[in-house]
Amino acid sequence: MWHISNEYSGECHCPLCQAAFRKWLKNKYHHIDAINHAWWTSFWSHTYSSFDQIESPSSLGDKGLHGLNLDWKRFVTDQTTDFMRHEIQAIRTSGAIQPTTVNFMEDYTGLNYYKLAEYVDFVSWDSYPAWHQQQDIMTAYDTGMQHDLMRSMKHKPFLLMESCPASPNWQAVSKIKKPGLLTNASLQAVAHGSNSVQFFQIRQGRGGFEKFHGAVIDHYGGEDTRIFREVTKTGIILEHLSKIAESRVESPVAILYDMESRWAMEDARGPRNQGLFYHETALKSYQAFRRNGLNVDIINMEQPLDSYQIIAAPMLYMFRAGIEEKLKRFVQNGGILIMTYWSGIVNETDLCHLGGTPHGLSDVLGLHSEEIDGLWDGEVNHFLPVNGNEPHLKESYACRHLCDLVRLQGAVPLMEYADNFYKGYPALTVHKYGSGHAYYICADAEADFYHDFYQRIITAQQIRPILDRIPEGIEVSSRVHKDFEYVFVQNYTDSTIDICLPDHIEILSGNYNGTISGYTTIIFQRKST
Amino acid sequence: MWHISNEYSGECHCPLCQAAFRKWLKNKYHHIDAINHAWWTSFWSHTYSSFDQIESPSSLGDKGLHGLNLDWKRFVTDQTTDFMRHEIQAIRTSGAIQPTTVNFMEDYTGLNYYKLAEYVDFVSWDSYPAWHQQQDIMTAYDTGMQHDLMRSMKHKPFLLMESCPASPNWQAVSKIKKPGLLTNASLQAVAHGSNSVQFFQIRQGRGGFEKFHGAVIDHYGGEDTRIFREVTKTGIILEHLSKIAESRVESPVAILYDMESRWAMEDARGPRNQGLFYHETALKSYQAFRRNGLNVDIINMEQPLDSYQIIAAPMLYMFRAGIEEKLKRFVQNGGILIMTYWSGIVNETDLCHLGGTPHGLSDVLGLHSEEIDGLWDGEVNHFLPVNGNEPHLKESYACRHLCDLVRLQGAVPLMEYADNFYKGYPALTVHKYGSGHAYYICADAEADFYHDFYQRIITAQQIRPILDRIPEGIEVSSRVHKDFEYVFVQNYTDSTIDICLPDHIEILSGNYNGTISGYTTIIFQRKST
Amino acid sequence: MWHISNEYSGECHCPLCQAAFRKWLKNKYHHIDAINHAWWTSFWSHTYSSFDQIESPSSLGDKGLHGLNLDWKRFVTDQTTDFMRHEIQAIRTSGAIQPTTVNFMEDYTGLNYYKLAEYVDFVSWDSYPAWHQQQDIMTAYDTGMQHDLMRSMKHKPFLLMESCPASPNWQAVSKIKKPGLLTNASLQAVAHGSNSVQFFQIRQGRGGFEKFHGAVIDHYGGEDTRIFREVTKTGIILEHLSKIAESRVESPVAILYDMESRWAMEDARGPRNQGLFYHETALKSYQAFRRNGLNVDIINMEQPLDSYQIIAAPMLYMFRAGIEEKLKRFVQNGGILIMTYWSGIVNETDLCHLGGTPHGLSDVLGLHSEEIDGLWDGEVNHFLPVNGNEPHLKESYACRHLCDLVRLQGAVPLMEYADNFYKGYPALTVHKYGSGHAYYICADAEADFYHDFYQRIITAQQIRPILDRIPEGIEVSSRVHKDFEYVFVQNYTDSTIDICLPDHIEILSGNYNGTISGYTTIIFQRKST
Repeated sequence: MWHISNEYSGECHCPLCQAAFRKWLKNKYHHIDAINHAWWTSFWSHTYSSFDQIESPSSLGDKGLHGLNLDWKRFVTDQTTDFMRHEIQAIRTSGAIQPTTVNFMEDYTGLNYYKLAEYVDFVSWDSYPAWHQQQDIMTAYDTGMQHDLMRSMKHKPFLLMESCPASPNWQAVSKIKKPGLLTNASLQAVAHGSNSVQFFQIRQGRGGFEKFHGAVIDHYGGEDTRIFREVTKTGIILEHLSKIAESRVESPVAILYDMESRWAMEDARGPRNQGLFYHETALKSYQAFRRNGLNVDIINMEQPLDSYQIIAAPMLYMFRAGIEEKLKRFVQNGGILIMTYWSGIVNETDLCHLGGTPHGLSDVLGLHSEEIDGLWDGEVNHFLPVNGNEPHLKESYACRHLCDLVRLQGAVPLMEYADNFYKGYPALTVHKYGSGHAYYICADAEADFYHDFYQRIITAQQIRPILDRIPEGIEVSSRVHKDFEYVFVQNYTDSTIDICLPDHIEILSGNYNGTISGYTTIIFQRKST
Repeated sequence: MWHISNEYSGECHCPLCQAAFRKWLKNKYHHIDAINHAWWTSFWSHTYSSFDQIESPSSLGDKGLHGLNLDWKRFVTDQTTDFMRHEIQAIRTSGAIQPTTVNFMEDYTGLNYYKLAEYVDFVSWDSYPAWHQQQDIMTAYDTGMQHDLMRSMKHKPFLLMESCPASPNWQAVSKIKKPGLLTNASLQAVAHGSNSVQFFQIRQGRGGFEKFHGAVIDHYGGEDTRIFREVTKTGIILEHLSKIAESRVESPVAILYDMESRWAMEDARGPRNQGLFYHETALKSYQAFRRNGLNVDIINMEQPLDSYQIIAAPMLYMFRAGIEEKLKRFVQNGGILIMTYWSGIVNETDLCHLGGTPHGLSDVLGLHSEEIDGLWDGEVNHFLPVNGNEPHLKESYACRHLCDLVRLQGAVPLMEYADNFYKGYPALTVHKYGSGHAYYICADAEADFYHDFYQRIITAQQIRPILDRIPEGIEVSSRVHKDFEYVFVQNYTDSTIDICLPDHIEILSGNYNGTISGYTTIIFQRKST
Repeated sequence: MWHISNEYSGECHCPLCQAAFRKWLKNKYHHIDAINHAWWTSFWSHTYSSFDQIESPSSLGDKGLHGLNLDWKRFVTDQTTDFMRHEIQAIRTSGAIQPTTVNFMEDYTGLNYYKLAEYVDFVSWDSYPAWHQQQDIMTAYDTGMQHDLMRSMKHKPFLLMESCPASPNWQAVSKIKKPGLLTNASLQAVAHGSNSVQFFQIRQGRGGFEKFHGAVIDHYGGEDTRIFREVTKTGIILEHLSKIAESRVESPVAILYDMESRWAMEDARGPRNQGLFYHETALKSYQAFRRNGLNVDIINMEQPLDSYQIIAAPMLYMFRAGIEEKLKRFVQNGGILIMTYWSGIVNETDLCHLGGTPHGLSDVLGLHSEEIDGLWDGEVNHFLPVNGNEPHLKESYACRHLCDLVRLQGAVPLMEYADNFYKGYPALTVHKYGSGHAYYICADAEADFYHDFYQRIITAQQIRPILDRIPEGIEVSSRVHKDFEYVFVQNYTDSTIDICLPDHIEILSGNYNGTISGYTTIIFQRKST
């Protein structure tokens, strides 16, 4: 395999790149008037009369044109992809026939990785979670979502290119891993679709910026270290799992998590300039699915939707690639759509949709958004259950940051706001459309809401979880191959936890006698259903 | 009317402006020795031997010469004024005869607006308070003080050029306005002397930096929105108030709030470099006057003082424009002067006054300052009443940030410090001078002190409040025209509040039956006294 | 005396200095390959093929090469020293024969002051503590450590070049000094080895950046001020202490506090990039010695060790100048070495030592470090006493920031960790080596640990304290001359404190009748032992 280059990133504003950008724009827009419209340049007197007047957005110039910023980011991705393709071409010309990969980074927003993924044979990435900062299960969910994002790009196994056997040296604090965590983290990658477990680095260098980056062999140099022993142990486990490489992950549900939409949303001014919490919001949907025992795909707007039973589309600010039509068909055909506030606001050049949002889906959702209230840090409202709501939601839940005020046009309110002048306004709604249902979450509700709400939907849809009754602190995931399913049960706490595994399973790794020990993994196989 | 340009701001350090600055300096100082003295350049070896050596203060050069910084700010104001006058000249040359205005910004420190105000026919400004962040009545006071500052510049009605019908998009959080607040905020402008209520913007643009700035007509585009209805309602109220445009605001009291003094004070190093709280301190005087039912003028040192009964001069660091003589005459003739710590420290080029401060007013105040103690954030001292103090102050009040230690030379202590080695030192003093009295507040006391203390002074002076007994959360203000007074009573809470309006009034707007509803305004007229 | 220049600082990246830097490097390394090895340039592809390719580290270029950064700092010190020597040469050539000095700054990390100190006759420094921010005794310890550092550079009396009679104007908050503190702070300098007490400034200037810097004569200008009186009083005390100028400070213990090691340690990435607390950690050793009644020298790795009974070497990241051999001999010959975590990690060009750390001292300490755990801000572990530990430590102590996990090779654990998976691992160890003992503190323990632990060592070593039983809030220090010892007892609280002074003493200054008043100093002399 060829690893084409390391962690592509950065952007260039040199005259050559500026020229290339103008050419890229000409190719996309053909005429300067099209740019003036797309970027709405008449506001604040930005109108261009020629492509030659366009400069890249930078701190030396103007970053106030959102459309320009957005196209610049697309261009940077295209330039990087182009560069990568030249690199690949070079090795191909020289006769190399091995597959290629390039390593991606966690939640990196400088590039649209989907574009690069098209041209390599395998996606790979470098996983450096900050363990032991929050509850480890939360870090496991966050890392799991990244694994699932990497896998979903090509819908096939990926590679864990880098991970740290001890602690990276560049995080705010270099925490060492508790015994067992290294193995857990390594096996989590496999559970989520990686066909490799690799470490950076085998041996610590004596100098340089990363001389204190954890390694299999440290400056001491011996094999008699805790790290070396745990790496060895992990390797022995992996040797017995080679057949899993043939399997793949199947997910009944997906989360729409789109980089272009994120670029535009986070660049915009309003409705909340001190934090929109996009990643955190998507993660709450992810956790809710996982805690309820489901594998999850993380897809963007260009990918097919038809294989899923539920699609969560949190904060889908930009509608592009015909997503409104695709979602409409998805619901029409029986799918469950879960949409939230601040969705369908702009088109692909960041021009606001007129006539009500989420754009083009009012008939599907049975509502449109009227106003959106930003909440100060620390300000809280609550979701209260509407009497007799169909999913039988009974609790109250805190919500923060953004509260959408919607006008119902057929949707049924399931929960309502508890406070402010919009007390009693809908906070969660449902609308039947075709054979499916479309839910709308009006505000940034706490994680428990997502857990409870998704549980009821999953139960109602009769989607089979990988395991029933998953205790807190345990992550469950699976891969399938023909007749067999490989199930990974991971304990991300330091306590032994009671857990009930199904009958007729074969334990491939780990110890099970009604419990799972702290920081250990049980892997079993069973017949696929 | 001609609106000359939008929100003048910024400064230019190009070679042409540097040359203009040197010319400006030559014109002011004539000889380089005069500059060396005025800016005290011998300190740290900054002595100039020629005007050509002077460069504007910038991050590329030197910002350590306070006198230079101060003159640069004056020059920037003069340059901007000059530019504006050229713009006005252009429209006059072309035959336009309409009045002119230029819109100012809230608490903007980049320009001395008084200079620009001289050359336009009307002052106007853009009011974008961050409602619903603190108690709304506090935001109303802060906004009211800005209105009064704008009105006081020309002592005649101003224009509310811009305000937002929904929420601006560029604040940290875009909070929507509670029902009624839009009308209240609009009428507050009128109450304080505006002869217009205008909104930015009528219709949201589809793109650009402010595409999410609130508008009368939003992206949805309908008239059936909460905002549209409230704007409409506000317009109807205003239609019935047109006669008020003939009236003007009369204030028995004024606050000296001077931009040149502020420039110098906030640029200085010491006695507190992590916050002097000038604006907040002035605001405490403002709130105290308003809570006690008085209209307030906000004036600078060049304006006449004679029409006022009380003048508060908080933190008047710089004495210029002969202010010490004017204040002396004011007290001599029966006025009440309220001065505070950190006043009369420097002259108009930021050279420290020798021989005791507040400069030139020791005989009026009956004291001079000996030392000033900076307090850490969170550190607190207290004011305790001196037994038998004449205004009968009875409570204890917290003070923070700065504590002046004064030596009495005739003044009588009314309150004293409770803590530190200066326990028992004077904290509030009074001195009779001529027919008037001069008070000195030694430290940054809490708002309740200002309220209680001013109440006693106002009562003693027999100044008639607009209304007696103003409940918390209510703002009261008035305009007068010949025989009539127009009184605005505004509720800035969401509760209905009992309030006692006088007899023989005619309600012009709003509902009154012994109470005022939450977020509503009552306007009545009565015979002037 | 000639004061050569004021507070040397800064660095220059101009072409001339870059060229000088390359010449300096050639002189040190001779061949580019030696640089490539020393700086480990092969990491991240930094390999140089010529000296001409080397550029100084700056924000315009690359700061990622730790070895380059380190040599640059050494070069800047050498350039500055060279400049200073030219200045000295100039006055010598002109016939001046007076001694020279240059004033240093508190805890300044831009220069290695030891290099400059070589070429002046006296060390002097500018002392501007921020009194009344924390407990004053803590500020006194911190200032005392700086005095001791200045004295230890040349092991002879130094000069207090600048101190502020009131409050400096450039600190975050300008707090005035409580009565008595000015005298205390002045006499503390003398107690620690200064032969001068000087103030900046005699008279406040009217303008300039420091116009509000405290002065003996302020803008008011009179002699009837609190400050003027306290300065006068201090002067009178000093007049009676002139014989103390002949004496010197003798310390039985020293702290290794090395600038080159600090440069490298604080530039490195890992194990904690949000605070290593080097200064604070050294200060905890310092306080422990002082609270137990000992004078302390603050030395670097190039100074002789043989005169001390105890050497504390906290966080001695870099081993250079043969320190491991010197420390080995020191312990061999009966010395007490106290070493901590994160020591002996790199060599003098910041290359990591292989084979176990602290490098070269495993046999002396009886252990090597295996892993080091970074703790989040707010995260705490604890030291618990091991049953039957020889120094009879009985309490538990909090530790933070960094926890070393060591493997014992002969050392005896005295305390152990209370929490995390390394509960029960050694937290404090001792190892007998030759005639001495080597202690190893594994984590950043709280100040009380240092106090209690050092007390036991001092007692066991039978080192005589200046005074027995020093109450909290009191600092004690001494100077000796032939047969006499001059003891300074200083109360850094505002309370009168009971204290027992020995018999047969002669009070030189201050009042003693079984107590010492708040913010006062007692100076007595006694026969040396």
